[in-house]
Amino acid sequence: MVERKVYISGEMMPESQARISIFDSAVMLGDTATESTRTFGHIPFKLAEHVDRLFKSLKVMRIDPGCDAAQMLRITQDVLKANLQCYTPDQDCWIVHNISRGLSIAGSDPTKTASGATVMIFTQPMDLRSWAGFYTSGCHAVTAMSRAVPAQSLDARIKNRSRLAYTLAEAELKLVDPAAQGVILDIYGNVSENKGGNIFVVSDGVLKTPTTANCLAGMSRATALELAADLGIPTEETILQPYDLATADEVFFTSTPYCIMPTTRFNGMDVGDGQVGGVTKRLLGAWSARVGVDIQKQGEDQL
Amino acid sequence: MVERKVYISGEMMPESQARISIFDSAVMLGDTATESTRTFGHIPFKLAEHVDRLFKSLKVMRIDPGCDAAQMLRITQDVLKANLQCYTPDQDCWIVHNISRGLSIAGSDPTKTASGATVMIFTQPMDLRSWAGFYTSGCHAVTAMSRAVPAQSLDARIKNRSRLAYTLAEAELKLVDPAAQGVILDIYGNVSENKGGNIFVVSDGVLKTPTTANCLAGMSRATALELAADLGIPTEETILQPYDLATADEVFFTSTPYCIMPTTRFNGMDVGDGQVGGVTKRLLGAWSARVGVDIQKQGEDQL
Amino acid sequence: MVERKVYISGEMMPESQARISIFDSAVMLGDTATESTRTFGHIPFKLAEHVDRLFKSLKVMRIDPGCDAAQMLRITQDVLKANLQCYTPDQDCWIVHNISRGLSIAGSDPTKTASGATVMIFTQPMDLRSWAGFYTSGCHAVTAMSRAVPAQSLDARIKNRSRLAYTLAEAELKLVDPAAQGVILDIYGNVSENKGGNIFVVSDGVLKTPTTANCLAGMSRATALELAADLGIPTEETILQPYDLATADEVFFTSTPYCIMPTTRFNGMDVGDGQVGGVTKRLLGAWSARVGVDIQKQGEDQL
Amino acid sequence: MVERKVYISGEMMPESQARISIFDSAVMLGDTATESTRTFGHIPFKLAEHVDRLFKSLKVMRIDPGCDAAQMLRITQDVLKANLQCYTPDQDCWIVHNISRGLSIAGSDPTKTASGATVMIFTQPMDLRSWAGFYTSGCHAVTAMSRAVPAQSLDARIKNRSRLAYTLAEAELKLVDPAAQGVILDIYGNVSENKGGNIFVVSDGVLKTPTTANCLAGMSRATALELAADLGIPTEETILQPYDLATADEVFFTSTPYCIMPTTRFNGMDVGDGQVGGVTKRLLGAWSARVGVDIQKQGEDQL
Amino acid sequence: MVERKVYISGEMMPESQARISIFDSAVMLGDTATESTRTFGHIPFKLAEHVDRLFKSLKVMRIDPGCDAAQMLRITQDVLKANLQCYTPDQDCWIVHNISRGLSIAGSDPTKTASGATVMIFTQPMDLRSWAGFYTSGCHAVTAMSRAVPAQSLDARIKNRSRLAYTLAEAELKLVDPAAQGVILDIYGNVSENKGGNIFVVSDGVLKTPTTANCLAGMSRATALELAADLGIPTEETILQPYDLATADEVFFTSTPYCIMPTTRFNGMDVGDGQVGGVTKRLLGAWSARVGVDIQKQGEDQL
Amino acid sequence: MVERKVYISGEMMPESQARISIFDSAVMLGDTATESTRTFGHIPFKLAEHVDRLFKSLKVMRIDPGCDAAQMLRITQDVLKANLQCYTPDQDCWIVHNISRGLSIAGSDPTKTASGATVMIFTQPMDLRSWAGFYTSGCHAVTAMSRAVPAQSLDARIKNRSRLAYTLAEAELKLVDPAAQGVILDIYGNVSENKGGNIFVVSDGVLKTPTTANCLAGMSRATALELAADLGIPTEETILQPYDLATADEVFFTSTPYCIMPTTRFNGMDVGDGQVGGVTKRLLGAWSARVGVDIQKQGEDQL
Repeated sequence: MVERKVYISGEMMPESQARISIFDSAVMLGDTATESTRTFGHIPFKLAEHVDRLFKSLKVMRIDPGCDAAQMLRITQDVLKANLQCYTPDQDCWIVHNISRGLSIAGSDPTKTASGATVMIFTQPMDLRSWAGFYTSGCHAVTAMSRAVPAQSLDARIKNRSRLAYTLAEAELKLVDPAAQGVILDIYGNVSENKGGNIFVVSDGVLKTPTTANCLAGMSRATALELAADLGIPTEETILQPYDLATADEVFFTSTPYCIMPTTRFNGMDVGDGQVGGVTKRLLGAWSARVGVDIQKQGEDQL
Repeated sequence: MVERKVYISGEMMPESQARISIFDSAVMLGDTATESTRTFGHIPFKLAEHVDRLFKSLKVMRIDPGCDAAQMLRITQDVLKANLQCYTPDQDCWIVHNISRGLSIAGSDPTKTASGATVMIFTQPMDLRSWAGFYTSGCHAVTAMSRAVPAQSLDARIKNRSRLAYTLAEAELKLVDPAAQGVILDIYGNVSENKGGNIFVVSDGVLKTPTTANCLAGMSRATALELAADLGIPTEETILQPYDLATADEVFFTSTPYCIMPTTRFNGMDVGDGQVGGVTKRLLGAWSARVGVDIQKQGEDQL
Repeated sequence: MVERKVYISGEMMPESQARISIFDSAVMLGDTATESTRTFGHIPFKLAEHVDRLFKSLKVMRIDPGCDAAQMLRITQDVLKANLQCYTPDQDCWIVHNISRGLSIAGSDPTKTASGATVMIFTQPMDLRSWAGFYTSGCHAVTAMSRAVPAQSLDARIKNRSRLAYTLAEAELKLVDPAAQGVILDIYGNVSENKGGNIFVVSDGVLKTPTTANCLAGMSRATALELAADLGIPTEETILQPYDLATADEVFFTSTPYCIMPTTRFNGMDVGDGQVGGVTKRLLGAWSARVGVDIQKQGEDQL
Repeated sequence: MVERKVYISGEMMPESQARISIFDSAVMLGDTATESTRTFGHIPFKLAEHVDRLFKSLKVMRIDPGCDAAQMLRITQDVLKANLQCYTPDQDCWIVHNISRGLSIAGSDPTKTASGATVMIFTQPMDLRSWAGFYTSGCHAVTAMSRAVPAQSLDARIKNRSRLAYTLAEAELKLVDPAAQGVILDIYGNVSENKGGNIFVVSDGVLKTPTTANCLAGMSRATALELAADLGIPTEETILQPYDLATADEVFFTSTPYCIMPTTRFNGMDVGDGQVGGVTKRLLGAWSARVGVDIQKQGEDQL
Repeated sequence: MVERKVYISGEMMPESQARISIFDSAVMLGDTATESTRTFGHIPFKLAEHVDRLFKSLKVMRIDPGCDAAQMLRITQDVLKANLQCYTPDQDCWIVHNISRGLSIAGSDPTKTASGATVMIFTQPMDLRSWAGFYTSGCHAVTAMSRAVPAQSLDARIKNRSRLAYTLAEAELKLVDPAAQGVILDIYGNVSENKGGNIFVVSDGVLKTPTTANCLAGMSRATALELAADLGIPTEETILQPYDLATADEVFFTSTPYCIMPTTRFNGMDVGDGQVGGVTKRLLGAWSARVGVDIQKQGEDQL
Repeated sequence: MVERKVYISGEMMPESQARISIFDSAVMLGDTATESTRTFGHIPFKLAEHVDRLFKSLKVMRIDPGCDAAQMLRITQDVLKANLQCYTPDQDCWIVHNISRGLSIAGSDPTKTASGATVMIFTQPMDLRSWAGFYTSGCHAVTAMSRAVPAQSLDARIKNRSRLAYTLAEAELKLVDPAAQGVILDIYGNVSENKGGNIFVVSDGVLKTPTTANCLAGMSRATALELAADLGIPTEETILQPYDLATADEVFFTSTPYCIMPTTRFNGMDVGDGQVGGVTKRLLGAWSARVGVDIQKQGEDQL
């Protein structure tokens, strides 16, 4: 079997040798912008939009990646091409960008580096096993005890790798259920986001999700809203609170790997009748139709 | 010249080869506990206390480092011993611990890893050039526009490497003065901390610093308070606000590398009479006496 | 066996007949001030202080109980006396005051009633079975997802029966562990209180508990502080955050029924070495000595 | 005259004998979900919607009422039928549901009970005397000093009987004017709700009311919005602040008993020209038309 | 040259003699409602709307100006007429209203005065020199360190002369760039307003600006929204955060003197491509067309 | 009778002619630092401390008054001397400093002026009539609906004349009682300050007042704390909430004119037994002794 190749700052190398200095600002400061794009049938989904968002994150982080968005897009496509042989036709992959500020310099200015940005691009098989069972059973959404980092500290729309707050929130909520999927609230108690996804409810036929004032402007979130518009399902970007999840007819998460993850329990209570909901199914179906891949089947085939 | 050696999870290796997988949770999630200890005359200062705090961070981060505190202390001393030949008698060094959760697994649980913790320990020459000039001129302290991450999102006492919020705050405040030292406020507008240090004022003879409810419980902060007690200077842990810095008689920062950094300007205004203050000098002098190294001279000799 | 007697607004009646109108403001509006005192060896503990605090609650609630504190004390002692025959010498009891505003009137003014206050006073056997096991094993303290009602909405020092926020917080945290004891945070993420008790940590030999700015000024809290002073243990009323509990040497709760409840786990992590701590034991011992009852034994004898 | 009958957990009894144990969680913990529906011409208004909301409250409160919504609806209709003889044709009534968790158990878990839920259903004459004068004069709306309980403590959409915060806020604002109707702000200073109703303004022809992120999703609120839509009056759910009330052309409250209560003064200032406004009148007229009862006349006939 | 005339409480006087007592509440308490209207081609723009807003401010400030809005409008037109000879045909002017409560009385009630309101109305040449260069280069928008006064302290829609918080915020942000234009955030970190204007972004073709829940309901803001509607540009009143400005395609300010001020840098980062944007130009052009004055040229002619 | 003289920027003039330009930043922007000192027996009390605080305010406001503190002190004494003939031996006076930034310039930078600072210094007879009755009856303290401006918007310790928020809060609370004295809460619901004074409670023998983190560091506040220390009364600077005032044994205000104002009602409830308290009386007595003036008598003689 051919080993996957990783791109690091201009070089391609086997995945097993993909290493960076422990003095890189990625390690020293969690100082890394990131994007995760997935393929459907080996074709990257909304790659240009992901690269565009990456450049927004880089801009706000004041990191110069050493190339422009068009070049980044081409490099990314090259990385994908170089790796496609590693995936069977039925298998899809992530394409991950991790771009750090470069080699860190100890001292008074953390934005100074001893090198240009470290650009890491790699692919990985779309491993859906930890979510695939939820397409039919629905997952258990659980609220964290801790709260999301507020935008005036660090805007959630800057997609980055300083994720400790999210990791610890996950550790907390998995005390309730080791398979729980997290619902992180902001410091005002409003629903913010999942560690790597967005949260939707369906109530009285309306699809609702928080505005991006307190969460990542997810690509899958945008896709779900587009599909809903196509299907004639009214949508609303608003404030959601735990009460909305507890009393919703349907709840689901969106994220790049699983696209749409139905939720049938929230903090130990059934969502709706405890079954995967009809709007959720229609949206997932429409998504599969749009990308030409049966998303649910692809996931379940991994189980 | 002999190359410095780095310890990574049981192995010693030359610094130039100290690399970790780009899939390590340090890179993927900024998921790293850390400590920075310095030596005075080649003797580590409060190393046991640093290791103790490291184990508090690891506990709250739910990371098992694979050894207990006593073992970590011994390993650390071994790393130092193996590197002391790289430092001249006049030269001191940092000893840095970076301990990540280990190899990251893509999926729904960020606390699961494909390996044990990655334990990185290294030394580096105490490079004081970006601060040393401030011992006589005082630095310019500047408030960031963004606010510190609140404790209910991520407690500042967990010394960690998910530092993006701090790095971006520094980038903002350095718009005012590229040599500015940062004063980060919490979301209520109270003084929190510097990206890597604590903040003190002297007003009417009393030495004041924020409580640790919104900042790192710094080792240098504790040392400054101990020295003040020794010198009979009354101290108070309290709420400080920008007004307190602007109207103080003296202001200084504390941090491991520089110990005490006098501050003579705050947001463009002189602090006191614009000169390094007497209490600041006494504390720095007492610190030098305690550790048997003329801290100011050591720094200034690098200029 | 003789049936216990309940006092309701001037009348004594058998407990089984102690009923109030469903139109009472206690039912209609949760509009009830309350106190719970316990006996040690059939002698009420700090009864005068409890009655004093009851009158503070009544004052702030603008309820006139129809008698003054001295009369209330006498009535309470009469109720106890009338019931003591129901308790064996080894058995102690609660004395509970519930005082509502009286019969509610539908309309625009909820402070108007169709009767004087409804004064309910009763005793109940001190049933310690749900806590007694914790004297030796320690309990598991768990943080709620929801937050305490802030003082600017309803001051926690008004001891009252509008407890829904607390009950729902308990339901949440018991998802983690059905035997969990709750640690409710305030809206700023600081430790507030338990649904019916206060929270203490011991760190580096100092006994710490939140100030009463965000929690009930508990009688047992005050007793623990008094006993610590007697034992020469330094104490501090301060801000506590989850980090403080996770990294403390000891944690315990105080409340009227169990006095001191050792805590050996916090959010799934061991507190200290996972054993009941020495300061905790000394305080519980001193409490037993003060009241002449072996508190731990009395509880454990019920198991 | 026939006495009204009350339903308590399966039994019908005369109102004068409708009592519950003082150990019921309604009394001990204010642990009661509630709804208040009114009749127009002896026909309950939106009863199914009220029962639906009741079941949302029960779900979030994790109370099992022992029957489903359809059964509850039938029981409620039976209770009404059994009482209609007590009302003259011109007289309407409330139908109130109070459902507590059941008999309370002292101990560590307030969600455990010694019985099933206590289901209380009763009717009462629609006593409008404390509001009826406001249909022509308008009421005086006054802001409370205290703030509404925030949703992260207890969501206002859970219609419940732990109302002490509201009662005390009313006591405060009635210091300004004993006939004042309350405008409770949330902790951010935005208009939340009245103790038992919602708040609307009319500005430049647009009818505005707060979103339900910080207030009860009132049935009368929904009705007012529906009627406005029917009348072609544009509506907006938004943030309102005291400035909006002070400078509005019209202000009114909505609630089940009075439907729409015009407001002509706010914190001592005239609203608009100090007269009941035209939009307010049209909405009240449309409501009367919809239900076939002259709401204003019915109220004023009680004076 | 004829001297400009100022109206003070019924009298016209030469500008050089326009003085008020140092005991006026304007001086003693900053207790002044204000409006600034400008002329285009000597015709006041939206004067009636400005006077209407002035009366809203006066109402909420509980100041009786001694006349009604229609009278105020007439007096204002008289003041303008009396001064028009002082302006060349190409020159426009401000018309400023400053209305204080009157002569202050030391004592316990600051709302009591020893005289009626002090009504000051004056015109001044429209001096655009400090902004005119920005029509082609764009200005540099910079975030203040301090935060806007929240509405629950003082609603920003009350246009008043207690401006110290804004002045000090300006002093802070001008540390970054002496020509910077301020972006003041509210205490939640959301974009509020400029010291004297509102803030807009254009993102993906949509024109966005904060709702008036945390900023002045600017007349120029309203005009920009009207013009956008005329031009078919979609608009949204929403929450904006620094991320939105940093990643916008265009940013601009609106205010009475300059109407629309393009912004090409934000906190040191280019906005879009660093050039004045197309939507910004179209709106400014439409404004010029509407008022029959080439606004940009008028400003630039002053340079 | 000789007319009082006012000092304005170097000139002495009769009070009746003391006027400033309506373009002064005092009028245009409320941009004025201030101090109010009073005399006892014609001797100014703590004048040097007042001038020192004035210079702190000026520094943070970045206003250069054109002289240093020592010169300001001398000028102030000259102003007093020039006016003493206007006061009888029994009569005392205020000495007020109002220092504005100078003549305002319309444009983008409010910190630029067309002149140096405007320095206003005047004396006024100590008119105590609006407070003097409270020495024996106690005043009625009432909470405002609005909240104090938070320190991150404008620090309360900057003693300034942008007072609109305070004036409007007073207008609100005087709706409860036209003679009410205001208790302004901060945005967290904690007691902040009175419009021109500080607030104290006595509970269980301890004198408590808020820390200066959310209120003016009042000179009279400091004096009360000094006198308490002299009398052996324990003091605490802490968080106070409305509950503390409602349940205190004694409450009083401190401010320059009245020194100590007993409070016997709070939000309509009696404080303690509704009589002026013993600690309050002792402190007022000690103050009179310290300054050699019977403060209470001096006030009451004006009635």
